[in-house]
Amino acid sequence: MKNKTVLITGSTSGIGLGIANHFAKEGYNIMFHGLELNGEEIAKKIAEKHHIKAAFSNANLLQPEAIEGLVNETIKTFGHLHVLVNNAGIQYVSPIEDFPNSKYEAIIAINMNAVFYASKAAWKQMKKQKFGRIINVSSVHGIRASEFKSAYVTAKHGVIGMTKVMALEGAPFNITSNAICPGYVKTPLVEGQIKDQAKAHQMTESEVIEKVMLKKQAVKEFVPLEAISDMAILLAKNSSTTITGTSFVLDGGWSAQ
Amino acid sequence: MKNKTVLITGSTSGIGLGIANHFAKEGYNIMFHGLELNGEEIAKKIAEKHHIKAAFSNANLLQPEAIEGLVNETIKTFGHLHVLVNNAGIQYVSPIEDFPNSKYEAIIAINMNAVFYASKAAWKQMKKQKFGRIINVSSVHGIRASEFKSAYVTAKHGVIGMTKVMALEGAPFNITSNAICPGYVKTPLVEGQIKDQAKAHQMTESEVIEKVMLKKQAVKEFVPLEAISDMAILLAKNSSTTITGTSFVLDGGWSAQ
Amino acid sequence: MKNKTVLITGSTSGIGLGIANHFAKEGYNIMFHGLELNGEEIAKKIAEKHHIKAAFSNANLLQPEAIEGLVNETIKTFGHLHVLVNNAGIQYVSPIEDFPNSKYEAIIAINMNAVFYASKAAWKQMKKQKFGRIINVSSVHGIRASEFKSAYVTAKHGVIGMTKVMALEGAPFNITSNAICPGYVKTPLVEGQIKDQAKAHQMTESEVIEKVMLKKQAVKEFVPLEAISDMAILLAKNSSTTITGTSFVLDGGWSAQ
Amino acid sequence: MKNKTVLITGSTSGIGLGIANHFAKEGYNIMFHGLELNGEEIAKKIAEKHHIKAAFSNANLLQPEAIEGLVNETIKTFGHLHVLVNNAGIQYVSPIEDFPNSKYEAIIAINMNAVFYASKAAWKQMKKQKFGRIINVSSVHGIRASEFKSAYVTAKHGVIGMTKVMALEGAPFNITSNAICPGYVKTPLVEGQIKDQAKAHQMTESEVIEKVMLKKQAVKEFVPLEAISDMAILLAKNSSTTITGTSFVLDGGWSAQ
Repeated sequence: MKNKTVLITGSTSGIGLGIANHFAKEGYNIMFHGLELNGEEIAKKIAEKHHIKAAFSNANLLQPEAIEGLVNETIKTFGHLHVLVNNAGIQYVSPIEDFPNSKYEAIIAINMNAVFYASKAAWKQMKKQKFGRIINVSSVHGIRASEFKSAYVTAKHGVIGMTKVMALEGAPFNITSNAICPGYVKTPLVEGQIKDQAKAHQMTESEVIEKVMLKKQAVKEFVPLEAISDMAILLAKNSSTTITGTSFVLDGGWSAQ
Repeated sequence: MKNKTVLITGSTSGIGLGIANHFAKEGYNIMFHGLELNGEEIAKKIAEKHHIKAAFSNANLLQPEAIEGLVNETIKTFGHLHVLVNNAGIQYVSPIEDFPNSKYEAIIAINMNAVFYASKAAWKQMKKQKFGRIINVSSVHGIRASEFKSAYVTAKHGVIGMTKVMALEGAPFNITSNAICPGYVKTPLVEGQIKDQAKAHQMTESEVIEKVMLKKQAVKEFVPLEAISDMAILLAKNSSTTITGTSFVLDGGWSAQ
Repeated sequence: MKNKTVLITGSTSGIGLGIANHFAKEGYNIMFHGLELNGEEIAKKIAEKHHIKAAFSNANLLQPEAIEGLVNETIKTFGHLHVLVNNAGIQYVSPIEDFPNSKYEAIIAINMNAVFYASKAAWKQMKKQKFGRIINVSSVHGIRASEFKSAYVTAKHGVIGMTKVMALEGAPFNITSNAICPGYVKTPLVEGQIKDQAKAHQMTESEVIEKVMLKKQAVKEFVPLEAISDMAILLAKNSSTTITGTSFVLDGGWSAQ
Repeated sequence: MKNKTVLITGSTSGIGLGIANHFAKEGYNIMFHGLELNGEEIAKKIAEKHHIKAAFSNANLLQPEAIEGLVNETIKTFGHLHVLVNNAGIQYVSPIEDFPNSKYEAIIAINMNAVFYASKAAWKQMKKQKFGRIINVSSVHGIRASEFKSAYVTAKHGVIGMTKVMALEGAPFNITSNAICPGYVKTPLVEGQIKDQAKAHQMTESEVIEKVMLKKQAVKEFVPLEAISDMAILLAKNSSTTITGTSFVLDGGWSAQ
């Protein structure tokens, strides 16, 4: 496993960073990507800790050429691209009536179109390798809706469709494509929201978690980064050739009810 | 029912025209939309035949402002907008590796984003009316994939997600939102394809239909326009307030297997 | 349409009776079935009102032979069997830990196995006719779960699977098979529950409806019998040959979220 | 992990044995169950190889009391029951018209009802432990149909419903419930079928695999036992508390198209 290479978009914080740490532990070389100003440093630290190679890019996912460049840089730097984790995403919440067109377009571009452009760019290399693992971090919102998230839910559903097509087209080349659909994950972003909502609703933080944030989950716990990372590692395995075209939902029972 | 108004995008040919004919028969006033040069004439003939009012627009669905204009023109012309049928769509087929970026962007724009912009523009009027029926003509490709249709399948899945969000946000205002997901429908476009493929494969036309085009359907018949139109009319009814957020799949058993 | 015959299980009250009234209005002859003591009388009244033929049976759906007898009696009485509406169902609510085995077995037998036995018995006749419409009244619980309904949810999911198989096997013979999946419908049974819960929770009846019974629906209204019946009539049409193997969900947005 | 106990039904051959080997490797104590006459011996060998404790039962899954006995024996023998893998299953293939009632009833009993009885019996112990992992080996037939498998598809869909209910009811007690839905797995049973079909169709064995058996899979390989076992191990982890109520589909792209 030592020599495999993974590119993870949005990997300098949150879920992407969690996944990166896990891949590092497994010995993958990693192309980090994100907007954090200390991205370079994050990559370096993880590389040293786990004795892997790492690099960093802050490519702008709004630009198809930049995405293509990110993929090409990965291949050039590490000589391969075995696993592509399309994880970067943004969110905006508004009633549809007032949803700003620019916000809608940005969410579709980053959360959905960037998955297409990155996968398209990686395709040739993966075909050549006769090995590819595309892992799209979608969301429970890839299969269910919430109010005021028209752009996000649309994009995440779109990714599920794209995941299936890539599975069919990748089948002859040992390129698999799957989605991971988490419920609520406790990222730094979410932790901030808990504090804010506790103030706003005059509730304790644990009340906010149970009654507001995790209202739709049967299990009143955030999905841990470890569960998502475990799933990603499993999907990346050599023995996972026949696992393709599906969605792995980790949502505390949200979508079951 | 006499005074209700329906706007149907892409209604000067194919599925959209079939739906329009059905709504005309039921006494709806219709805003036609499409690219056919004789759109005005089509609208006029149907209006005369069924004693309804009709108008026509060839608004460019690639432009959000044009879509907003189309909706506003409908409301101005007829005084209402009860039913919005988002039907217009384009297709392009290519392996992901070679899929032209411009084709991808156009399919996402027309087949998916235009649904957002039209529905957003219609929202205020539907809220005011305390009545709205948004009917999105998705496809079996809104829930299943085929090779070489990465853009189309992505867009159609995206529409399914959008449909659900609009259902949730519309619930307090008697605005419903549903998708119709047909399998293969015999439109003029498809008829041409049959002839071409018969030549290419040296098969009879009926062999092409059964073994190539309808390979994935258990029922070896095209989905008739009547079935799709019946479903649209049903969804538009006053008594259909609680039918919302779901996909009505008419696919000859395709997705069952 | 005058001469078509429909057999509807559980049609002497609730949803089944609603569907029967609708089919009667459309001119179908009807085999009624149910446990109401005045079933004979119900059948007679509806027959007179709509100038159709009707008969009644109280066959025990726990017994495969009785089900076969019911189907055979229908064919013998009316000469045909065009539409089979598998609607009869029972419910029992309990934590799995304490769920009585006998209750579990009865729910599986009535709600699921009876669908198999009735459809199997109808198959030969429908094949001979080159026309058959099997309509299974499942539930939103055929695609989603609720606590304490392990038997009911299991049975209703099972019916969805059976519906798909019958669609595939029926395709060459113009036998279609579909499920209708309603959310909460206001039947006499449910009306009683509203009153009881209002007392128990010290709420008004409308609070019970909105906050307890329809908590999972985005639309805070019961699904009307008319919507379910409209869907059943549509599925029974001649032009619905290609509508098969799917689930038509009428649930006020329940499953969208 | 050393002291955890897993009960796996149908674990003396095929998929169940594959899963058992994997759990043994991870240090779980195992209650084996199956019909193989040398079940005792199989259990003993695996126990010795992996330095775990193992026992064997050939309880009759057609009898609710025998299933309850199997669960109780497991708890008595090992002091715990952490993971229940409901894996045992039988198959029978026939057009619905001729499907023997007794075969239908047996498939429902073993493949579906036994899951209910085993889980119900395990519930109290899992609640007490504040830890339980129920893993139901369903099938791609839990979400899709094939002709002539009415009983099997019904049962497997039913299990998916049951899985969701148990997830909701188990949430407060750290009892999770999930399904694994494999496509075609190369078990000894299937290997025999390949040989037979090769003779019958006058094809090579690899043609049978690609064109007959794996026709619906995009990936023309059997799902390896390792992939299924990896998934089961992942679901059994402590960190998988929030993974519940869903189906993990490993089907070579079958259900994507």
